[in-house]
Amino acid sequence: MDEDPFCEVIELYSWMSREIPLPSEKSAEAARRRLDRLTKPQGSLGRLEGLAVELAAATGEERPKVRPAGVLVMAGDHGVAAGGVSAYPPEVTAQMVLNFLRGGAAVNVLSRVAGAAVWVVDVGVGVEINPAGVGSTTGAAGSGAVFRVRKVRPGTADMTRGPAMSREEAERALDVGWSVAIEMIDSGIRLLALGEMGIGNTTAAAAVAAALTGWPEGDLVGLGTGIDPVRRQKKLQAVRRALAVNRPDPSDAVDVLSKVGGLEIAGLAGAALAGAARRVPVLMDGFIASAAVLAAVHIDSRALPYMFASHRSVEPGHGRILRWLGREPLFDLDLRLGEGTGAVLAMPMMEAAARILDEMATFEEAGVSDAEA
Amino acid sequence: MDEDPFCEVIELYSWMSREIPLPSEKSAEAARRRLDRLTKPQGSLGRLEGLAVELAAATGEERPKVRPAGVLVMAGDHGVAAGGVSAYPPEVTAQMVLNFLRGGAAVNVLSRVAGAAVWVVDVGVGVEINPAGVGSTTGAAGSGAVFRVRKVRPGTADMTRGPAMSREEAERALDVGWSVAIEMIDSGIRLLALGEMGIGNTTAAAAVAAALTGWPEGDLVGLGTGIDPVRRQKKLQAVRRALAVNRPDPSDAVDVLSKVGGLEIAGLAGAALAGAARRVPVLMDGFIASAAVLAAVHIDSRALPYMFASHRSVEPGHGRILRWLGREPLFDLDLRLGEGTGAVLAMPMMEAAARILDEMATFEEAGVSDAEA
Repeated sequence: MDEDPFCEVIELYSWMSREIPLPSEKSAEAARRRLDRLTKPQGSLGRLEGLAVELAAATGEERPKVRPAGVLVMAGDHGVAAGGVSAYPPEVTAQMVLNFLRGGAAVNVLSRVAGAAVWVVDVGVGVEINPAGVGSTTGAAGSGAVFRVRKVRPGTADMTRGPAMSREEAERALDVGWSVAIEMIDSGIRLLALGEMGIGNTTAAAAVAAALTGWPEGDLVGLGTGIDPVRRQKKLQAVRRALAVNRPDPSDAVDVLSKVGGLEIAGLAGAALAGAARRVPVLMDGFIASAAVLAAVHIDSRALPYMFASHRSVEPGHGRILRWLGREPLFDLDLRLGEGTGAVLAMPMMEAAARILDEMATFEEAGVSDAEA
Repeated sequence: MDEDPFCEVIELYSWMSREIPLPSEKSAEAARRRLDRLTKPQGSLGRLEGLAVELAAATGEERPKVRPAGVLVMAGDHGVAAGGVSAYPPEVTAQMVLNFLRGGAAVNVLSRVAGAAVWVVDVGVGVEINPAGVGSTTGAAGSGAVFRVRKVRPGTADMTRGPAMSREEAERALDVGWSVAIEMIDSGIRLLALGEMGIGNTTAAAAVAAALTGWPEGDLVGLGTGIDPVRRQKKLQAVRRALAVNRPDPSDAVDVLSKVGGLEIAGLAGAALAGAARRVPVLMDGFIASAAVLAAVHIDSRALPYMFASHRSVEPGHGRILRWLGREPLFDLDLRLGEGTGAVLAMPMMEAAARILDEMATFEEAGVSDAEA
């Protein structure tokens, strides 16, 4: 620890002092040229080729590496969940964190398929989580997950009655996400997927997106993990009340995150900024992770070229956020689970795009005749 | 070898004596019940859940296994290619086979990502291929490919002047595909992807699909790996002339394959039948592999529940064949390369669907509260 108090502030709130480089047009151009010399008709690998160029630009490498990959699952509770906006009781957040640590959740299974490490962070779960006997120190395929307890507060306050948290708490949550993402990257991670767990968090994500963009709340409030239309109406009312009560400032994303966001949403925004600062491609999951990225690019628009879409979920606001970000999803499998599952499912496609550049033979190398002029 | 000549015929033409079982409704129902007890909101894994049920039905296992996976790339040349229907000269077929054996083609790279074995079969390349010094005995990730030379004839005849091959040759090509697929399955393969290489083969695939379905040729002839509109017009004329000269019988898929098909297309049809007979899920690639499956289900409609779509390619006829088969693709990445690349790219999704059933915890096991009634 440095004794200089200024340096300590930098250490604590490093997301504030970030530098985000421009993507490398030189690496992108080199990747484009290489793609056209590989043994395939030009452009015949479709969107994988565009993805390869974007990965080259983001990483600054002509032959980008996206392995090893990891998914960062941030968990937090929501005061608004007491108002019956979800089909599940709030205790499910903590129960599912334990399930992640044991390796029994969907994100664990899909991460084993993708060969990705799972990192789970308690940034604001409502109760204490006792991970004794579960969890692992590596999060590697086959095991459960790395677990970090960085609880800023035990769940947010009910945003329909006042701010979900203080500005200082939102800043600390951003820093938790930033610092754990940096830890992952320092451990070798070259592709960072964002996932979340938090009963009630599609409600908060809808409020964040509506506050930042001014889009009608009705276009952003969906059925979450599976509620009926009556409960959806409650959820819509909760979003409208939260916005009316708190009047978040659309030009200040931290204000928005603190008043109508969530601890895990702010944490993911910080993680997204860390990926961009370190030139590590960030893979968004569904509506909530994408709302966190929306907040991150409102904090710093230089982060955008480092953000990649995986899937488009059932949640109506998700496609809208992706279009705003200019990021086309790779597939649409009607997922609506979260946890980072869709992002992890997209990892092999990201890896395929990167490895084509690195491993395919050129026409010259393979002695294959190119197309007739 | 059995001395009985009847048994020898069975051995040679085993695709003719196939038995294809019905999919297991019992396993499908068990999979459905299990999916609803896993720690996720019901249906929240979207199309992965439907896929898991279809895999259970096909394999007859409540917890289906789709590993190890392999891609069968069948290569053959086309007499019609001399008429300038492709942007590439015919010698590229043999050059690309050598590239597969060295591990430098796109299908090799994507197979390494998916952990799949690559098997390459020369069922009708125009020239002799000398694989000395290249190839491998396992086709495992990291190596090139297993290579089998089962040449029925060195390329087809020009189908615009007469039949592409004799009926007996088409039957032998079907048998090559069948027997290599059985060899792969006997070596342990539990998911069989179909790929192909053959300059001119989108022309033959369009003719096969038009002959079997009666769809207008213009809806089935696309730009292949990348030709200009003038060359596309030549290609359309070639398809129309081939159909007019040969008058294939739409009720006899072997007649269609022999008159306007290709050796690799017939081979893939045989491989598809073998997968179905052994209850091994078959993953289609693009237009040509899907046209081969269209022929296979015309030979034996019981094969259909074992056929799975991977992607929808740029080729206009591909989506049309998939709709006819009732198979929705998992993604659409504007691919138009062939070789099995799209199918291999879909393997992790197939594996994810299967492993969810096998590895996710149930609500009871994980002590997670289910949704409120």
